[in-house]
Amino acid sequence: MASSMNNLGIVKRNIVRADKAAVAKLAKFGVATIHEAMGRVGLMKPYMRPIYSQAQICGPAVTVLLQPGDNWMLHVVAEQLQPGDVVVAACTTDNTDGFFGDLLATSFRARGAVGLIIDGGVRDVADLTEMKFPVFSKAISAQGTVKSTLGSVNIPVVCAGAVVNPGDVVIADADGIVIVAAANARIAADAAAAREANEGDKRAQLASGVLGLDMYKMREPLAKAGLKYID
Amino acid sequence: MASSMNNLGIVKRNIVRADKAAVAKLAKFGVATIHEAMGRVGLMKPYMRPIYSQAQICGPAVTVLLQPGDNWMLHVVAEQLQPGDVVVAACTTDNTDGFFGDLLATSFRARGAVGLIIDGGVRDVADLTEMKFPVFSKAISAQGTVKSTLGSVNIPVVCAGAVVNPGDVVIADADGIVIVAAANARIAADAAAAREANEGDKRAQLASGVLGLDMYKMREPLAKAGLKYID
Amino acid sequence: MASSMNNLGIVKRNIVRADKAAVAKLAKFGVATIHEAMGRVGLMKPYMRPIYSQAQICGPAVTVLLQPGDNWMLHVVAEQLQPGDVVVAACTTDNTDGFFGDLLATSFRARGAVGLIIDGGVRDVADLTEMKFPVFSKAISAQGTVKSTLGSVNIPVVCAGAVVNPGDVVIADADGIVIVAAANARIAADAAAAREANEGDKRAQLASGVLGLDMYKMREPLAKAGLKYID
Amino acid sequence: MASSMNNLGIVKRNIVRADKAAVAKLAKFGVATIHEAMGRVGLMKPYMRPIYSQAQICGPAVTVLLQPGDNWMLHVVAEQLQPGDVVVAACTTDNTDGFFGDLLATSFRARGAVGLIIDGGVRDVADLTEMKFPVFSKAISAQGTVKSTLGSVNIPVVCAGAVVNPGDVVIADADGIVIVAAANARIAADAAAAREANEGDKRAQLASGVLGLDMYKMREPLAKAGLKYID
Amino acid sequence: MASSMNNLGIVKRNIVRADKAAVAKLAKFGVATIHEAMGRVGLMKPYMRPIYSQAQICGPAVTVLLQPGDNWMLHVVAEQLQPGDVVVAACTTDNTDGFFGDLLATSFRARGAVGLIIDGGVRDVADLTEMKFPVFSKAISAQGTVKSTLGSVNIPVVCAGAVVNPGDVVIADADGIVIVAAANARIAADAAAAREANEGDKRAQLASGVLGLDMYKMREPLAKAGLKYID
Amino acid sequence: MASSMNNLGIVKRNIVRADKAAVAKLAKFGVATIHEAMGRVGLMKPYMRPIYSQAQICGPAVTVLLQPGDNWMLHVVAEQLQPGDVVVAACTTDNTDGFFGDLLATSFRARGAVGLIIDGGVRDVADLTEMKFPVFSKAISAQGTVKSTLGSVNIPVVCAGAVVNPGDVVIADADGIVIVAAANARIAADAAAAREANEGDKRAQLASGVLGLDMYKMREPLAKAGLKYID
Repeated sequence: MASSMNNLGIVKRNIVRADKAAVAKLAKFGVATIHEAMGRVGLMKPYMRPIYSQAQICGPAVTVLLQPGDNWMLHVVAEQLQPGDVVVAACTTDNTDGFFGDLLATSFRARGAVGLIIDGGVRDVADLTEMKFPVFSKAISAQGTVKSTLGSVNIPVVCAGAVVNPGDVVIADADGIVIVAAANARIAADAAAAREANEGDKRAQLASGVLGLDMYKMREPLAKAGLKYID
Repeated sequence: MASSMNNLGIVKRNIVRADKAAVAKLAKFGVATIHEAMGRVGLMKPYMRPIYSQAQICGPAVTVLLQPGDNWMLHVVAEQLQPGDVVVAACTTDNTDGFFGDLLATSFRARGAVGLIIDGGVRDVADLTEMKFPVFSKAISAQGTVKSTLGSVNIPVVCAGAVVNPGDVVIADADGIVIVAAANARIAADAAAAREANEGDKRAQLASGVLGLDMYKMREPLAKAGLKYID
Repeated sequence: MASSMNNLGIVKRNIVRADKAAVAKLAKFGVATIHEAMGRVGLMKPYMRPIYSQAQICGPAVTVLLQPGDNWMLHVVAEQLQPGDVVVAACTTDNTDGFFGDLLATSFRARGAVGLIIDGGVRDVADLTEMKFPVFSKAISAQGTVKSTLGSVNIPVVCAGAVVNPGDVVIADADGIVIVAAANARIAADAAAAREANEGDKRAQLASGVLGLDMYKMREPLAKAGLKYID
Repeated sequence: MASSMNNLGIVKRNIVRADKAAVAKLAKFGVATIHEAMGRVGLMKPYMRPIYSQAQICGPAVTVLLQPGDNWMLHVVAEQLQPGDVVVAACTTDNTDGFFGDLLATSFRARGAVGLIIDGGVRDVADLTEMKFPVFSKAISAQGTVKSTLGSVNIPVVCAGAVVNPGDVVIADADGIVIVAAANARIAADAAAAREANEGDKRAQLASGVLGLDMYKMREPLAKAGLKYID
Repeated sequence: MASSMNNLGIVKRNIVRADKAAVAKLAKFGVATIHEAMGRVGLMKPYMRPIYSQAQICGPAVTVLLQPGDNWMLHVVAEQLQPGDVVVAACTTDNTDGFFGDLLATSFRARGAVGLIIDGGVRDVADLTEMKFPVFSKAISAQGTVKSTLGSVNIPVVCAGAVVNPGDVVIADADGIVIVAAANARIAADAAAAREANEGDKRAQLASGVLGLDMYKMREPLAKAGLKYID
Repeated sequence: MASSMNNLGIVKRNIVRADKAAVAKLAKFGVATIHEAMGRVGLMKPYMRPIYSQAQICGPAVTVLLQPGDNWMLHVVAEQLQPGDVVVAACTTDNTDGFFGDLLATSFRARGAVGLIIDGGVRDVADLTEMKFPVFSKAISAQGTVKSTLGSVNIPVVCAGAVVNPGDVVIADADGIVIVAAANARIAADAAAAREANEGDKRAQLASGVLGLDMYKMREPLAKAGLKYID
């Protein structure tokens, strides 16, 4: 992580975003598939929910660390956005205030951002839904925020229990949010593709009535573990 | 409950499901109506929510006790399912992992199951919604599970605060989930029907402007209890 | 607040409702806008959620204080309702039982009420959604209630963290619920209108790519606060 | 409540504190007794806990409204304290940061304050315990706060669900925190004394084996309500 | 469970309490040991906490089902108590009110009861601590309760997630609360004794520096599971 | 973080522990002081609590990632412990089971470990308290765990919201838990010392009645921010 003790008040301008082709490939898969394909790392906590039911996001992370009740740094982060970016906003403490609304969404979209992940609250959700600007948050709240205290932009953050480095790929859908390290984007996309191909065959077998017990050859290990059938 | 102390590692194959006609009759009524008609027993806690807004379930319970982060027994339970069954999954401890997804739903449906109640997490909710496979859960999470430790199938379980015995009727809708003991299914269905008939008349009176105060003859008991009107 | 120590068992019949024109004007604005325009007072806690996604309410409050698991006073409050009123129900302690359902909604609507805010549970939500009777609550629960213990009607209450006096304006939408004191209704409506007008211009600028950093002239105060840009 | 819409940025210097003799009398009784004696109004929510097990507070409230993550106003409130006062700190939104520690406690004590009720976090709890400075809070957290944004002093606040006006009596012990309106302090103290006297007799009867069923003459109402004894 | 649908309003007088010698033997062991010895069934949820740090309880359960905010049935249950009994109080819905205080404790003790487990709130905790009357609860709250609505006594209840039948053994200590079915009390006590004997030897080995890896022969299964050591 | 996608099943044997002298110096300061001195980074969430009130820990972290309901890796981590080490245990998902008890504490102590931080549950807390083995956890639970699934040892983990790398310094006391990166240990210790020296003088001034308003020269910025005094 940061080598200096105090990482507040810093904006890092140049970050290495994950490979575009890998990001595009990851966008085809669901969060559960990618999380499995990666060996189950990088998942955010399940309290994070989309503001509308079809919300989906995939893109490289631009990170921001907020102070409670203060959205100043969301204006600072806007300038660092490039087309396709996803803003990942952490907070120094638990806070559900409405840090983000339709004006910031308008600005983020004008810069090309494709969504927001925020470990805090969001407001103007009817407008955001109409705009189809996807946001995953831990709360919806009309409570406004001030612009008084510095956080940072593009430092590593812990957001909803997951470490996010700037440039990492963020994938979000109805099942949650997963972070793929930029260096792993290609291999994760390939692994997800392999897993999904594999799932199609399993689904067909299960649909035809084959049991997972047989398809996965579980009967022997279950018996060894001591499973007993009684009538 | 179970007479042996240790009820892990057991699959009971033969269970007595509630009477089919009674189940079919119960399916016509809402959870709130049935819960009232039964004298207010058997309701699960309100943290259980449907994964899509129109989800509804009615059928006899096949129960399963899971270990945290382990969905092995969901494969075991699949083999015990008969058409119309509802799987009720409890866990030995609080856990929100994604125990269940579209592959298991495909398998459950192939066996004839009509839904899942799980005191834990579920994933692939977009697929499950498209499949119209109704699930009521306490969380949505992409977090996968292992297949390592035995639980049991068709033992009595406590799921979201309600005792569920195999074969009991499970009714779930937007208001929550209620369990009707298999032996009470018929009488509960009749009581629900009586209650609903009664409600139609009340609704008409209230819609016409009659007050509950008068319809239910509450003015006297309110006055006796000491209610005072001031200006 | 109430000068007598014990404010249970009282129904106040004559209350001063906020000015109708002001209420009508407030109905045009969102909760976030009104809350900002008022200087950020009167917001309920964000755990309060609408039972369907398009729910919206605006009207003067008729307040009721309930006992846990007891909805007797909801029948008492029905008689005090006038067209356009919003019922605001608080409870003497945290409780998620289903105090309110489609029968009471039918009665409230027959009296002209336009919605319910309840710091408790609600049931029959499918029916209420079909009726388009908007309710904001902290829970959905089929658990029924008794009619045994007195609360009060039209006393000041604390509902979801906000003080509500009878006659205050209640505005609720997807972002939450805000209370405007009756005496402030006109000035709040004017302030909201001013704020919204102002927002249109900001939105256009942000949409054209102007940064909030420049539009709000934040660069100098950020630099003063010590913000450093690194590469 | 406040007639102006915006009540931030205000310090009210002159407040009317509850009668000293009444405060002294209230200090002799427990929170549960006083709450009962007052007809069960004014209790804070039970998430508020003392930082050490013997903590007890009784005195007139000096109120302060804080912003999340910001303790600036605790320095402002210090100047308004008189011997015997209790600081009641609310926050504009849910926040658990450590707003208060041993330095502020030293300052508050130097001004004569006898305790703090804070709907937020506190730190230096080992020092505060050694100092025997009683604090009731919703959290313990080392997270520091900034001094950037105005709140107010001596305005009415909602703290942990209870309305507190400046000058009201605050009584806190192991059972929780109750607020007695300044105007009611005398009558509440008398009612608490009457209640406690009454309790001594009841306790003796119960200790001798008399049942509450008989002492409170409950057998008849229980039978009327339908209670059935079975073997 | 109960064969009738509605189990409210019933007091069962004759229950079969667990064998006294087995109860006495179980009292020698901790909750964790007994829970393990029984195969890990019957544990209440960990939100239940003792009101003072040394609290311990062991005895047969007399059960009571309460209504929210209503402690009427605690007076009814008092009459059913025999020396050594433990009252286990469940509630029809989540509720944290102070159902129980020092007067009821005086009455329970006069009847010989040795403690209370309540899935709700308790008050007068300073007095209860001084009396050394052990209570395990989910909350401490001064909020009083009414005496208006029937529950039941000595029916099976779900308390903090565990099924409790009248006469079952309740064991509670700092680690939590476990229920042993009356029929299993003897065998559970023996199993706990065996387990504890076994633990003494393990403790000595571990204290001498032997690793669990070797004592439990875990190295081979860990290697088989794929564990890799790197430098 | 880890360069491979899958970091499960790994035990890193050689880690660089923070400088001993710096650790010893940090042990003299409280968590709040160190957290402030470091610029407010590295604090765990406030739900982590000590199992007894005087618990304190300071030492280099040996990290372990657990699976829910599975404490196998706690036996693996024991072998990697050196005198003075602190075990920091994270879990792949939220879980409150009792992963750790007096046997493991005996083993950890035999290896020289001085405490445990666990984002999960712990049991045998009466024994651990008697042993004076300090543990900070998110829950106390008698629920036992299995030994079936691999986690890892000495990989970077997120524990209670804070990133912990093996070798980092862990400081825990009544105010919470803070992590100091190994490379920053010396400078953090010096900064904490400077801060504490500074606090002594402030405390003396405040104790003498000087107000923070004057000592920190807040009157002018408060006035600039718009603070108004009224009577």
